[in-house]
Amino acid sequence: MSSQYGKKVKISIFGQSHSPAIGVSIDGLPAGVRLDIDQLRSFLQRRSPGQSKLTTARMETDEPAILSGLVNGVTCGAPLAIIIRNTDIRSEDYREIQDIPRPSHADYTAHVKFGGYQDVAGGGHFSGRLTAPLCAAGGICLQILRGLGVTIDANIVQIGDILNAKEKGDSVGGIVECTATGLPAGLGDPMFDGIENRIAGIVFGIPGVKGVEFGSGFAGAALMGSENNDSFYMDGETVKTRTNNSGGILGGITNGMPVVFRVAFKPTPSIGMEQESVSLSRGENAVLQVKGRHDPCIVPRAVPCVEAAAAIALYDAYLDR
Amino acid sequence: MSSQYGKKVKISIFGQSHSPAIGVSIDGLPAGVRLDIDQLRSFLQRRSPGQSKLTTARMETDEPAILSGLVNGVTCGAPLAIIIRNTDIRSEDYREIQDIPRPSHADYTAHVKFGGYQDVAGGGHFSGRLTAPLCAAGGICLQILRGLGVTIDANIVQIGDILNAKEKGDSVGGIVECTATGLPAGLGDPMFDGIENRIAGIVFGIPGVKGVEFGSGFAGAALMGSENNDSFYMDGETVKTRTNNSGGILGGITNGMPVVFRVAFKPTPSIGMEQESVSLSRGENAVLQVKGRHDPCIVPRAVPCVEAAAAIALYDAYLDR
Amino acid sequence: MSSQYGKKVKISIFGQSHSPAIGVSIDGLPAGVRLDIDQLRSFLQRRSPGQSKLTTARMETDEPAILSGLVNGVTCGAPLAIIIRNTDIRSEDYREIQDIPRPSHADYTAHVKFGGYQDVAGGGHFSGRLTAPLCAAGGICLQILRGLGVTIDANIVQIGDILNAKEKGDSVGGIVECTATGLPAGLGDPMFDGIENRIAGIVFGIPGVKGVEFGSGFAGAALMGSENNDSFYMDGETVKTRTNNSGGILGGITNGMPVVFRVAFKPTPSIGMEQESVSLSRGENAVLQVKGRHDPCIVPRAVPCVEAAAAIALYDAYLDR
Amino acid sequence: MSSQYGKKVKISIFGQSHSPAIGVSIDGLPAGVRLDIDQLRSFLQRRSPGQSKLTTARMETDEPAILSGLVNGVTCGAPLAIIIRNTDIRSEDYREIQDIPRPSHADYTAHVKFGGYQDVAGGGHFSGRLTAPLCAAGGICLQILRGLGVTIDANIVQIGDILNAKEKGDSVGGIVECTATGLPAGLGDPMFDGIENRIAGIVFGIPGVKGVEFGSGFAGAALMGSENNDSFYMDGETVKTRTNNSGGILGGITNGMPVVFRVAFKPTPSIGMEQESVSLSRGENAVLQVKGRHDPCIVPRAVPCVEAAAAIALYDAYLDR
Repeated sequence: MSSQYGKKVKISIFGQSHSPAIGVSIDGLPAGVRLDIDQLRSFLQRRSPGQSKLTTARMETDEPAILSGLVNGVTCGAPLAIIIRNTDIRSEDYREIQDIPRPSHADYTAHVKFGGYQDVAGGGHFSGRLTAPLCAAGGICLQILRGLGVTIDANIVQIGDILNAKEKGDSVGGIVECTATGLPAGLGDPMFDGIENRIAGIVFGIPGVKGVEFGSGFAGAALMGSENNDSFYMDGETVKTRTNNSGGILGGITNGMPVVFRVAFKPTPSIGMEQESVSLSRGENAVLQVKGRHDPCIVPRAVPCVEAAAAIALYDAYLDR
Repeated sequence: MSSQYGKKVKISIFGQSHSPAIGVSIDGLPAGVRLDIDQLRSFLQRRSPGQSKLTTARMETDEPAILSGLVNGVTCGAPLAIIIRNTDIRSEDYREIQDIPRPSHADYTAHVKFGGYQDVAGGGHFSGRLTAPLCAAGGICLQILRGLGVTIDANIVQIGDILNAKEKGDSVGGIVECTATGLPAGLGDPMFDGIENRIAGIVFGIPGVKGVEFGSGFAGAALMGSENNDSFYMDGETVKTRTNNSGGILGGITNGMPVVFRVAFKPTPSIGMEQESVSLSRGENAVLQVKGRHDPCIVPRAVPCVEAAAAIALYDAYLDR
Repeated sequence: MSSQYGKKVKISIFGQSHSPAIGVSIDGLPAGVRLDIDQLRSFLQRRSPGQSKLTTARMETDEPAILSGLVNGVTCGAPLAIIIRNTDIRSEDYREIQDIPRPSHADYTAHVKFGGYQDVAGGGHFSGRLTAPLCAAGGICLQILRGLGVTIDANIVQIGDILNAKEKGDSVGGIVECTATGLPAGLGDPMFDGIENRIAGIVFGIPGVKGVEFGSGFAGAALMGSENNDSFYMDGETVKTRTNNSGGILGGITNGMPVVFRVAFKPTPSIGMEQESVSLSRGENAVLQVKGRHDPCIVPRAVPCVEAAAAIALYDAYLDR
Repeated sequence: MSSQYGKKVKISIFGQSHSPAIGVSIDGLPAGVRLDIDQLRSFLQRRSPGQSKLTTARMETDEPAILSGLVNGVTCGAPLAIIIRNTDIRSEDYREIQDIPRPSHADYTAHVKFGGYQDVAGGGHFSGRLTAPLCAAGGICLQILRGLGVTIDANIVQIGDILNAKEKGDSVGGIVECTATGLPAGLGDPMFDGIENRIAGIVFGIPGVKGVEFGSGFAGAALMGSENNDSFYMDGETVKTRTNNSGGILGGITNGMPVVFRVAFKPTPSIGMEQESVSLSRGENAVLQVKGRHDPCIVPRAVPCVEAAAAIALYDAYLDR
C-alpha cells in the first residue's frame, strides 16, 4: 500500500505526471450529498499550473471527469472515481535524469525502490501533479464539511523571495498555516489515531513537505507550562480555551477550538543551476543541469493541497468517530 | 482503532495509568530471533520514573513479563505479548480533575469522547505511563534492527531550565533529535506510506508531541534550493549525499543516508500552580490547583520513547518493503 | 471502506452498472513486470456478456483502458489504473425497482443503506458488471503468478438446467471449483490472515456467492479423522500428502499441495416470472414482474471471476509473506 | 498481521497452548458499558476442556483476568485486555511432533513458515486453546449486542458418532449452524466488506473450519431462482421475507431477517491411531503415533466459538455502519 489513505473515506490515488490520466477513487462517501462540480473545478484551478509567470509553464486545464459514484449530481454511496487527463505531455525533457538523478528529488530513491523501472517522465508518480487528484478528493470533502459548518483555510505564513530565485534559476520554500474551524470536540482517537497522527499521515504525502507542527509546535517547546497551557473558560454553555497553543487538539482529540497546524515546504529541488550528482549507469560523479519547465516555488500552489489534505483527514476522522 | 500501529509489525497497546497492568501485543515479529531480556530491561529503565529528583516521585520497576511469543528466549512467530504490572497506585490524588479538567491535558477531550466514563486516575490511557509498553515493543525492534546493522540514537537538542521550573511548580518542554544509521536505501513507499508519514504516525502517539520535522525541516523552508539540495556523489560504489538536509528521505523513501528527525515536546501540562479551568458538572469557571506528583519535564524520559517509536516505524517499513 | 481488498496488492474497485465507466486501481504491483494486454483482453472476454444465447443480451466489448502504472507495457511501481467504459446503457428498464425491490437482489438493502440515494440502474454498484474490474485486476495477477509457476484454473462442478430455466423465465445456480497449483508451502498467516480467510474475504465479493469450502469442506465434516487426514510422504525431497482433503491449507498456511476450494452461487435473483414484493413508497405488498435483459445463469461467466479472485488473494498472500 | 481482526472493534489475540498466558486486547469498545464478568466466565466455561469424558482430559479453569479497560466494572473507552493463565502445561508430550508432523495439523506448515522456530508444544499458536481469548472477546460483544436487542445462538446440526470414534482412537467432525436475530437492516458494505466476508474472515480463524455457507448456501445452488428467491412482504411497517434462503444478507448487507450461517468443522486431526508421516530432519517417510490427550471431537466446544466469532464480526459491522 502506498497511495491509499483513510479509514472511512478511503482514497486511492493513481497516475503519473505523464500517464494518460491521473485520478482518485474515493470509497466511503455518504449517499445523498449534492456536489457542486463548478465549485470543485474552481478549487482545482487554485492548484493548476500556468496561473502566473511565477509557476511552471505547463498548461493543463485539470478538468475533472467523474466516472462513477454520482447520480444526477448526488452521491449514491458507491465509490466516487475522478480522473483528469494529462494533455500537455513532453517526455523528451526527462531522458537525462533516468541516469543522473536530480539532487533532493525522488529520482534516486525511485530508481532504487523500483529497480530502474520507475516512470521517469516528469517525476512519474512522485510528481507534484499527483496533488491534483488529492485536491479533487479534498475539494469534495471540503464541500461536505462546509455543509457541517466546518471551514478550512490555509495561508502562506513564510515564503522566500520568488522573483529573485526565478531570475537565478534557483528556488525557494515556505510555510503554510492551516486552520479548521467549526469542528466538534471529541474527534480523533488516543495514541496512533489522534488528529495529529491523521493529519501528519496525509500531509507528508504532499511532495516537498518536511515538517508539521500543531498549535505552538516547535516554538511551544521553548515555553514554560504556565505560558503554553490553554486555560479553560465557559463561553455561555461552551467550554473554550483563552489561548490555542494546543492547536485545538488535546490527547489527539479535538477540543472544539480551531485545529491549527503549519507545514514546512522545502525549496523545490528542481532548479536550473548546475548541480553535482552521479551517473547511475557509470557509477561515477556527474554534473547535472536540469532542463525543462519547473516552478521556482510550489508553495502558492501547495496552499489548496494543504486544505485538501486537512479536509480529507478531518472528514475521515469525523466519520470514524 | 486507536492504540494499534504497523503494517507488518502490528503493535496493540493497552492499559491505563492505574489499571492492574499495561502492556503490548506485538504481532508479526519474525521467528528465530534471540531476544536479550536484560537489555530490554535496561532500555525500559531509561524511561522509568524515579530515576532522579527531576522526574516524578512515582516508583515503578517496570519489570516486563513476557506472556507469549518466546520459546527459550527465541521468538517463535506467534504474537509476543508483554505486560508490566502497575504497583504504585494512588488513585485518590485524581478525584478533582474528573470535574475540573487540567489545562492542556487530555482530561477534557477524554471526558467528551468517552462521555464521562474515561479512567481519570493518573490520566488513564492518555498517561505518559503508556509509553512503557511502547518502549517494550520498541526495545525489541531496536535489538532486531541492531542485528541488521541499524542503530538508532536520540538526544535532547533543546530543553528549558528544569531546576528553575521545578522550584516554581512550573514545567518546561524541549526538542529531541533522533538519528537512524545503517538503513538500506529503498525503504518506505510513495505518498501516504512514506517514511515521514510512518514516523509521524507513531511519534504523535507519544504524549506531549506537537511537531515533527525531517532533515532541515522548518529551517529548510527558509533556504534556497541551491542551499538545501543535497548533492550526490559516489563513495566507492555507494551513492551518498554531501549534506543531509533531506534527513535521509526523498519522496518518502530512504536514500541510504541517516534518517534524521526532530520532535517538539510541549512543556508538561501538569503544573503545581493555580490555573483557570471550568467545572464540567456546574458549567462554570473554576480554579484548579493540581495536587500529586508530576514531572517538571518529561523530555529526558521521552528520549528512549522517541528511539522506540522510530525503531518500530523503521522496522515495520523494513519488513513491509 | 467497502470495495477495497488486499494488504500488499491493494485493489480499489469503482463504478456502477450504468455509470460512465467502471474500473480499478491496483496499488502495490512490483515494478518491472511486462504485461500482455491482449491476454488480459482475452481473459476479460471470458466473463463478457453477449457470448452466447444463454447469457444476457447486453453487448459490451469490455475494452480495458490502462490509465497509469504502465510504461511501454511494463509496470513502473505506481498504481495501475484500468477503466472500462459503459457503452450500452438503457436505464429506462430499471425505474420500477426503485420502488419495488427485486426479491433476493440487493435493491432493498441498498435502499436501506443509502437512504434511497443508491444508483438503481442495472443494480448500480451491486451489479455483476463490477466483476469486470475484478477480472481486470485478477487477470494481471494471474499473469504474474504464471511467471512464478502458479496456475489457477476454475471449472463448473454443478449447474442447473439452463435451457429449461430460460424457457420458463426462471434461473439456476451452480458450484465452481477452483484449483491453484504451484504455490510454495508457507503462504498465509495464522488465525485471521489464513489463506481460507483471505480467499473467502474476496470471493464473497462476487455477487451471488453464498458459500465457500476448502478441500473436503462440508463433506469432510462427515468423515472420520482417519479418513479425512492427509498422510505425509516424501516425493524426492519434497513433502507431499497422499490425499488433499485439506485443500492445500493447514492452519491457514499453504502446505505445497494444490489449493482447492468450491464456491456456491445462488440462482440469479432476476427472473422473468411474477414475484411477491413490496412497494417501499406505499408500504404495502406489491407484485413485481422484472423486465429487461438478464441471465438465466451467471455461473459460466462467474468462472473467470473466481479465478481472478483467487489470483488476487493468492498473489497478495505471496507478497505478504 | 495475523491474529488481529476488526475495523472498529479491533481484537489482537496472543498466546500459545503452553505459554505463560493467552489473551486478547480489544480496542474500540464504547465507554460506559457495564460488563457482567460472571456471565463472561460462564460463557468461557462452555468451551473449557474437561467438561465431559468426550473432550480432552486437560483441566483448565480458564479464569479471565482483566488487565485494563474497565473501571468499576464499566468500560472506560481504553483497550480492554484480558489474559488467561495456562496452568496445566505438559510439554514433554509433544517432543516427537517437532520432527514428525501430525497429518492435517498445522505442525508442518508452521515448521515451514517459522523455519523450525515455531512453538511446538500443544500446537503453539495454532492450538484450539487460542479460541479461549476469542471467546473472551466474543463473550463481551455478545453482552453488548444483547443490550441492543441482538441474540446469537449456535447449535450442532450434524456430528459424527463420538463414542465410537473415541473407542477407536479416531475422531469426527460436524457442522454448526449459527443464527443472529434482532440485527437492523443496513449493516455491512458492498463487495469486500459485506457481512458474509466479515463473518467468513473471522470464522476461518477457528481451528478446524473448512467451509462456511449463508442461508441456503450450497444446497441453494441446486435450486431454481423461483424456489430460492425470498419474497418480500409487509409485516405491519416492517419489510420481511417469507423465506430466508438469503440468510438475512443481500448484496453483503443485512435485510433485517435473521443472519444464518453454517460452519463445517473437519474431524480433529489429532487421532490416536498410527499414521503415515515424514521425518523432517531425516527427509524420509516415518510412522507417527500421537500420544497425549486429545478430543475425539471438538465440535461441542466449538459452538460457543462460532457464537463468539459471529458476535465480534456483527458488532464490528454494527459500529462500522
